[in-house]
Amino acid sequence: MPAGLRVMSFIPKFEDIEAALRLIRPYVHRTPVLTSRQLDAISGAKLFFKCENFQKTGAFKFRGATNAVQNLTEGQCAAGVVTHSSGNHAAALAHAAAMRGVKAYIVMPSSAPGVKKRAVAGYGAEITFCEPTLAAREAAAAEVIEQTGATMVHPYDNFYIIAGQGTAAMELADEIADPDAVIAPVGGGGLLSGTAIAIRHMAPHAKIYGAEPLLADDAARSLRTGVIQPALPPRTIADGLLTSLCERTFTVIRENVDDILTVTEEQITEAMTLMWTRLKIVVEPSSAVPLAAVLANRELFSGKRSAIIVSGGNADLSKLPFGQRE
Amino acid sequence: MPAGLRVMSFIPKFEDIEAALRLIRPYVHRTPVLTSRQLDAISGAKLFFKCENFQKTGAFKFRGATNAVQNLTEGQCAAGVVTHSSGNHAAALAHAAAMRGVKAYIVMPSSAPGVKKRAVAGYGAEITFCEPTLAAREAAAAEVIEQTGATMVHPYDNFYIIAGQGTAAMELADEIADPDAVIAPVGGGGLLSGTAIAIRHMAPHAKIYGAEPLLADDAARSLRTGVIQPALPPRTIADGLLTSLCERTFTVIRENVDDILTVTEEQITEAMTLMWTRLKIVVEPSSAVPLAAVLANRELFSGKRSAIIVSGGNADLSKLPFGQRE
Repeated sequence: MPAGLRVMSFIPKFEDIEAALRLIRPYVHRTPVLTSRQLDAISGAKLFFKCENFQKTGAFKFRGATNAVQNLTEGQCAAGVVTHSSGNHAAALAHAAAMRGVKAYIVMPSSAPGVKKRAVAGYGAEITFCEPTLAAREAAAAEVIEQTGATMVHPYDNFYIIAGQGTAAMELADEIADPDAVIAPVGGGGLLSGTAIAIRHMAPHAKIYGAEPLLADDAARSLRTGVIQPALPPRTIADGLLTSLCERTFTVIRENVDDILTVTEEQITEAMTLMWTRLKIVVEPSSAVPLAAVLANRELFSGKRSAIIVSGGNADLSKLPFGQRE
Repeated sequence: MPAGLRVMSFIPKFEDIEAALRLIRPYVHRTPVLTSRQLDAISGAKLFFKCENFQKTGAFKFRGATNAVQNLTEGQCAAGVVTHSSGNHAAALAHAAAMRGVKAYIVMPSSAPGVKKRAVAGYGAEITFCEPTLAAREAAAAEVIEQTGATMVHPYDNFYIIAGQGTAAMELADEIADPDAVIAPVGGGGLLSGTAIAIRHMAPHAKIYGAEPLLADDAARSLRTGVIQPALPPRTIADGLLTSLCERTFTVIRENVDDILTVTEEQITEAMTLMWTRLKIVVEPSSAVPLAAVLANRELFSGKRSAIIVSGGNADLSKLPFGQRE
């Protein structure tokens, strides 16, 4: 790859998402868009679900990770990639790196679920365990970089990651012409930023919403106050949405997103139940947050062609929120 | 419909399944066939999953019910249809009848789960509650027939039901050329019979297997002894597979099915977990029985193109078998 291509702007443009899709297409699934007359009746909207739970490694994260890895120079490839994450980004980067024969170093808290440790190890990544604090993770990652020269691939504060995540919305807008609204969950804002850039270009009249748990509403408060708010303690079931925005994602969101809608834990569980029982798909709690937002804000979506990015399907079956409901 | 068409043979032929598919195509989903490299690696087979969990009403039963209802004469339509079932056939018949503007009478045990009662009522059917015994159900259905003249639509001992259920395998064999093996779960044998007739014609060299819980292995013992064995007490988690064969389904199965494979409860739960976590689809326990059979009989399926009919997705989320698995 010519060195000139490594000079990039701070924020991806639509052309960068187009380039990402061209680059990653051989490696990622074009996921299906599902509809449900039952859920349309329940919501009053015309809903479209872009099912990234069917993406490789079970989440949209594989798009961004693949874009980041495929954009490495040969020299960078030789030294490997590193990230700190206990979630979907870790497995996505491990798999994306393995597909290019690149070594992946993943820093995980020792408290991470065994199933996630095994998934990352299964892709051949080298795991470094650390204490479950952000400081410990960053220190461990810095040490890996010092020892190996590996390239840090941040889960969302990264140009190629944002561009890669935007490819899901690009496929979506290509498949369903002219949506009235697009809703994506927001944690660190990588998915929402990529989605917003893609949709603003392809469906300029569509409303673009982020959806967030009330117990992790830092993005909504960031938008309201104009200043990035820090992450809240991990109390929501939607454990993929705990991180706070960064300047890069905040800039995109402030310019392109119409609003960030917040939902209660009860609304998340109810929406997740509907997706499992009506769509018959396994989604993780974070992926139910946009549907919960649609159901909690009927006036915004009534009669509207509303498209939801279903972010992932890596639900922990040993910790499901479904109780006796007779 | 000309009266002559009502004269039918005891057992459907392939042409009857073809006719069924032509008739029901406007009303049913052509469900997707999913694959998974992870499950191929785990099983050693090349697996194809025909996903009837995505079918209307969440199960293949809607195919047979629609075929039965669409084959009613006008006179029969006026009097309605009746069945006794607490399971997927009840909801399927209720919805299929509603789509033709036909009244459905459903006899259900009063002990049936509230979610199933609400589903059937939601399709506009009239529910008659009875004691949870087969005798009570049959008596209640007989009374409905006497009072209304409604046509009984048995869940599997019915020509049109079997032909309708066979359309799933027909679509499957149309989509994946030349499978080496096809596996369907077996309870009363309607799905397995229809599948066997379709596959024997379209893929004559394919092995055809039924899959059954060891705790409800009446079909396996029927095949072995040559005599229909009665249903066992309801102890398996695969609650869709409790019923025993009838002469009609036993005849088809004896002539066309290579073997009936039995699996333990633990194997069913393990296969169900794999389908939820790897395919990211919600399936009910009965639908995991064929994959459990593949995993328990690797020598039969190793390297083989093996197609599984995923029968339904109406899992009761309040009664999931997943425990802490760290």
